[in-house]
Amino acid sequence: MDLKQKVIDRLNNLTKPVRSLGYLEDIALKMALIQNKEIPELFNDKRVYVFASDHGVVENGVSAYPKDVTYQMVFNFLNGGAAINVFSRHVGAKVYVVDAGVDYDFQDNHSLIKMKVGYGTKDFTKGPAMSREEAEKCIELGKKIAREAIKEGADLLAVGDMGIGNTTTASAIAVAFGYNIDDIIDIGTPLDSEGIKRKREAVLRAIEVNRPDPNDPIDVLSKVGGYCIGEMAGFILEAAHSKVPVVIDGFPTTSAFLISYYLDKDVINYVFSGHKSYVKGHKVILDSLNLRPILDLDMRLGEGTGAVLSMPLIEAAIKMIREMATFDSANVSKGIDQNLEDVK
Amino acid sequence: MDLKQKVIDRLNNLTKPVRSLGYLEDIALKMALIQNKEIPELFNDKRVYVFASDHGVVENGVSAYPKDVTYQMVFNFLNGGAAINVFSRHVGAKVYVVDAGVDYDFQDNHSLIKMKVGYGTKDFTKGPAMSREEAEKCIELGKKIAREAIKEGADLLAVGDMGIGNTTTASAIAVAFGYNIDDIIDIGTPLDSEGIKRKREAVLRAIEVNRPDPNDPIDVLSKVGGYCIGEMAGFILEAAHSKVPVVIDGFPTTSAFLISYYLDKDVINYVFSGHKSYVKGHKVILDSLNLRPILDLDMRLGEGTGAVLSMPLIEAAIKMIREMATFDSANVSKGIDQNLEDVK
Repeated sequence: MDLKQKVIDRLNNLTKPVRSLGYLEDIALKMALIQNKEIPELFNDKRVYVFASDHGVVENGVSAYPKDVTYQMVFNFLNGGAAINVFSRHVGAKVYVVDAGVDYDFQDNHSLIKMKVGYGTKDFTKGPAMSREEAEKCIELGKKIAREAIKEGADLLAVGDMGIGNTTTASAIAVAFGYNIDDIIDIGTPLDSEGIKRKREAVLRAIEVNRPDPNDPIDVLSKVGGYCIGEMAGFILEAAHSKVPVVIDGFPTTSAFLISYYLDKDVINYVFSGHKSYVKGHKVILDSLNLRPILDLDMRLGEGTGAVLSMPLIEAAIKMIREMATFDSANVSKGIDQNLEDVK
Repeated sequence: MDLKQKVIDRLNNLTKPVRSLGYLEDIALKMALIQNKEIPELFNDKRVYVFASDHGVVENGVSAYPKDVTYQMVFNFLNGGAAINVFSRHVGAKVYVVDAGVDYDFQDNHSLIKMKVGYGTKDFTKGPAMSREEAEKCIELGKKIAREAIKEGADLLAVGDMGIGNTTTASAIAVAFGYNIDDIIDIGTPLDSEGIKRKREAVLRAIEVNRPDPNDPIDVLSKVGGYCIGEMAGFILEAAHSKVPVVIDGFPTTSAFLISYYLDKDVINYVFSGHKSYVKGHKVILDSLNLRPILDLDMRLGEGTGAVLSMPLIEAAIKMIREMATFDSANVSKGIDQNLEDVK
């Protein structure tokens, strides 16, 4: 009997109706397959890596926030006052901040990983965001960060993003890979703000000017990507290759996942979607990949917040399979019929 | 300025775009209003009370499980091997089991609260499930249990249910209060199991035979309710009156909430919906009450499992407002425009 069937049999023997713990049972099975163990282990070292960088596209007025917020928020992360710090403390995860390309020179800090590829990308409405060499460097640096984390003992990873202009960049990546812009960014009704219209126009112009090749994820990354997105893609690839699960967060981290996925589709077997964000295009992409989000709370902050908040549910799924009694051990009678809806 | 506006102003000054933590912000506000404090306190004593009882309606073959599973599962709870034990340990909540009317005589146990109204209700397809006096006794005993819990220091409560036949009873209560049976139980296509058809028929017969008065929640409880449902209704009422939040779980606990709600609509201000269950009618009822579930994981186990798993998210919402930096304290620039979708 193969491992998958063994795990399913075990789940079906726990003192509950078959499938009655829903998605938690799928999570438990996925963790068992990732760890290649019938009874998956709990985590000893949970971490979130928040990748920060600036985006040249912000010159087109696509964001409500000034560019300086990127580096200001890095300080907030390092000082422990941002939402990701609060939620990570809550779930027992450590926060690492990666400077992938912020337009600011930071002092050394024990929580800051300096992996700057540049001081922000170029405006991709006028030409490529970065060179192909820079895109490849992003992937390599991201892999290096994951390798280091795993060497230090990390056994559950999450990625988060910070960078004014991130959602515009993520939208451009999604459209480059063939998603319809109308599914990703609202159509620009009179009720929409000017910012949304500018974002939409910037994405359309970026595709027209750069013609990214959807069959070449590095080409997509270099032409309409960002440094933080590229490093996250490398990070996800390396974690998956090392069989360490990675939780992705909202729309920008999902665009990084897309790049890693088109480089190697097997990564999806190591990735959890922490939450579905309020950002329109996020659900469309998750649905297309059949990647079910764990939480759905209309959050749209980024930083990895949705990813870390989902960690206790992944842990609950593991504890279910580790700690629950079986029908035999608890002397509970089995159902005569295990159909959905038909229990209790 | 009133408390509500003060809390909203505080939430809007945290270092995140306005409303970007979505439903967590609503939860934080609700907690602030419940505790009547601008900055809500964290919990010191989280508890789930699992109310168990038997239901005469099981004689109609509405469940896939034999009736004995009710008492067998009580033993499983007391031995710590059920899903609710595993998840409660995970989130740091204590489990109490209430014998509201199981057809079994239990020995004393420090986690068992003996509040038996009878040895299971009568078959409500043939007449009332219980007398009006018994229904009133359920409410009183439920109130007493909550009063005791709060006196001991409980500051976050959850309710869970165990009882073969519970969902049929909950369906009958929902239909008695005017919900359409087609929205509550599937219509009985050839693909459905016989159990669903029998459940549907039992509910329709119960309503026809007993004619419960929707304007008299005690009449509904006595005619088509259950002992566990009635005690949960009293428990929820008392918790709300003492301004202690209560998390409800799946469909049966929500039917108990309906009884408490029609006795006093103000209870809804103290109640959180822990999760949306896979059971068809649950979403219909939650939507009609505008009570948004925190989790949506296709669970349908009961026992309070969805309620306790949502507790870390309620705590995260409180920590957000307690621990996050403000724009001023962190020297982060505010957005020029705080429209939804338009940030970052």
